[in-house]
Amino acid sequence: MSTLSTADRMALIERNTAEVMGRDDLLTLLGTSTPIRHYIGFEISGKVHLGSGLVAMGKVRDFLDAGVDCHILLADWHTWINDKLGGDRDLIRRIATGYFTEAMKASLLAVGADPVRVHFVLGTDLYANNLDYWSTVIEVSRNTTLSRMLRSISILGREQSDSVDFAKLVYPAMQAADIFAQGINLAHAGTEQRKAHVIARDVATKIRTNRLTDLDGHTVKPAAVHHPLLLGLRKPPVWPLPEDVDPAALKMSKSDPSSAVFVHDDPDTIRRRVAKAFCPPGETRFNPVLNWFQQLVFGLGGAPVRVDRSQASGGPVTFDTYEDLAGAYGRGDLHPGDAKNALTAWLIDYLEPARGHFATPRVAAMLEEIESALSTRR
Amino acid sequence: MSTLSTADRMALIERNTAEVMGRDDLLTLLGTSTPIRHYIGFEISGKVHLGSGLVAMGKVRDFLDAGVDCHILLADWHTWINDKLGGDRDLIRRIATGYFTEAMKASLLAVGADPVRVHFVLGTDLYANNLDYWSTVIEVSRNTTLSRMLRSISILGREQSDSVDFAKLVYPAMQAADIFAQGINLAHAGTEQRKAHVIARDVATKIRTNRLTDLDGHTVKPAAVHHPLLLGLRKPPVWPLPEDVDPAALKMSKSDPSSAVFVHDDPDTIRRRVAKAFCPPGETRFNPVLNWFQQLVFGLGGAPVRVDRSQASGGPVTFDTYEDLAGAYGRGDLHPGDAKNALTAWLIDYLEPARGHFATPRVAAMLEEIESALSTRR
Repeated sequence: MSTLSTADRMALIERNTAEVMGRDDLLTLLGTSTPIRHYIGFEISGKVHLGSGLVAMGKVRDFLDAGVDCHILLADWHTWINDKLGGDRDLIRRIATGYFTEAMKASLLAVGADPVRVHFVLGTDLYANNLDYWSTVIEVSRNTTLSRMLRSISILGREQSDSVDFAKLVYPAMQAADIFAQGINLAHAGTEQRKAHVIARDVATKIRTNRLTDLDGHTVKPAAVHHPLLLGLRKPPVWPLPEDVDPAALKMSKSDPSSAVFVHDDPDTIRRRVAKAFCPPGETRFNPVLNWFQQLVFGLGGAPVRVDRSQASGGPVTFDTYEDLAGAYGRGDLHPGDAKNALTAWLIDYLEPARGHFATPRVAAMLEEIESALSTRR
Repeated sequence: MSTLSTADRMALIERNTAEVMGRDDLLTLLGTSTPIRHYIGFEISGKVHLGSGLVAMGKVRDFLDAGVDCHILLADWHTWINDKLGGDRDLIRRIATGYFTEAMKASLLAVGADPVRVHFVLGTDLYANNLDYWSTVIEVSRNTTLSRMLRSISILGREQSDSVDFAKLVYPAMQAADIFAQGINLAHAGTEQRKAHVIARDVATKIRTNRLTDLDGHTVKPAAVHHPLLLGLRKPPVWPLPEDVDPAALKMSKSDPSSAVFVHDDPDTIRRRVAKAFCPPGETRFNPVLNWFQQLVFGLGGAPVRVDRSQASGGPVTFDTYEDLAGAYGRGDLHPGDAKNALTAWLIDYLEPARGHFATPRVAAMLEEIESALSTRR
């Protein structure tokens, strides 16, 4: 049990988030000292980039600090359903409990959290010998229309939806069931997963099996925290961006390594990636370098942030807030090259514990396994 | 193993059916002496009428005679998904393993089969501690498009399909998985279930878990046998029938007892029901009394069939085939009243073993339980 006040716990839970769905529900749980059970689920689709590694695990650090019981679901079935890693279930499971778990532990070390305090749950282990789980999948489905299920996945038109393989639609029902079957009252994901959480909240009062309750046995809806997406480092395919762009299209992609930094990348790789990053002068909104300053350097590392500008550009400067840094960049007082150098130095330093974790031969071998698996499949 | 020839076994399997899907596949299995595993699944939706009791179990008798290993799936989950018996899962399970099982045994006795030779499987027992079953549900789904899944359920328009609860669409995926999870190479149902069997045959070569194989380990598609629907006794809502009528709309309905005879009905009830049956003079196509003569009296009892016409109508007559009887009826040589009396007498006699089974107090109490459950829900 946390010794912090409810307000302090809520502040930790809310910081660096895009949204807290069911904030009042969560406040009530905190106020009644109901144990808070968190989970975030991951598809095992490739190497762990800074979006999953630092942004998501940074929130897990906050949750742990707020006295929350944290769980990472290694979503091997969802990975399979979405045809990742060639849909090879044995490989998916091996990578999930091997490389992926170690990469998450490495990330937790980087953000300053204790990996031992986080529970890792393999989807298969949650679903096996657990008919109640499948009852909940059916109950979620009974209480959700087809059109709602379609809206929860990334399907564009009618024609595309007709030809979608049906398992893609079972996916959100399983995602909602994951929450109830684990007794989760604080679901967590990137903003792109919010629709599954909306479904979970909608059906919470309608299901019978695996009902989520408070300490008094009253049915509660799971709250949901969404962290913002981390921009990819590459220039978007269309620039300047159209007005109606979906920001999700700009997120970092595991399948395009040049858009991403992975938690175990060595200093040279980090330097190379950031040096090549898209960083349009004066542009602060869709600028990945500034976005990473905001979410990583300020969001995780904290202020003040020192940037060693070249003497020609004005010499060293310290920013107390991200807004100060963005303002200077917008006015041309912070050169892209100087910003990149400062970001690079911060990343190399901040990721040192993650690299250290991957320096042990056992863990290094796991990284080699996934790299080999990914190159075979390309 | 059957001592009959392949041709004789096939003749038994095919008799009184509307369709054998994958007939060549089945012949190959018979030719290689592969054990034939049959199943038919039933929703536990009410009392057992002659469609399930005599038509379906009549085919089970044929399958047993052909050396087939027969299974009845008590589909409690499907019943729940289709909101039958109020969607009360405990009640559904109790009725499934109590009343419904006894009604099927009674029906088997009526058609002259040994109930001990038929395996009864409760859906819950098949699905519990059986993660491979759920893998197969996902694999069927992965290999089936949404539009195909929609076509396999009774959904009319686009608007109706959008608002359908999603569990209704998981239903056919589970139905196909039921086949593979039980290793069924001879699926059996009424014609209205054929679309689920089409899905099962389509995905048979694509799934990995629970693949159906022959004795040599080669993947095979399940054959599927469909018995024809038994017409309900009531006059159709629109008469004469429009040209494009769906015959399924004329099937016997459990929810309208006056359209049905149940396997345990007493002689007076049978007399009353048949006396009130729709039996338009001269009409042989959509005439339930003639349909019952064809499927039950000739189909199950066999020829010759004696009808004790009144002296005014020509006196006793014997028909060697159903076509002879229908011909006489069409020409006006067989009066509806005489046909009804002969059908009534046949039913009372043929159902005697079923009534006898329900005469024991333990089984009679089960009938009372479902009647009480059904009346509460009306």
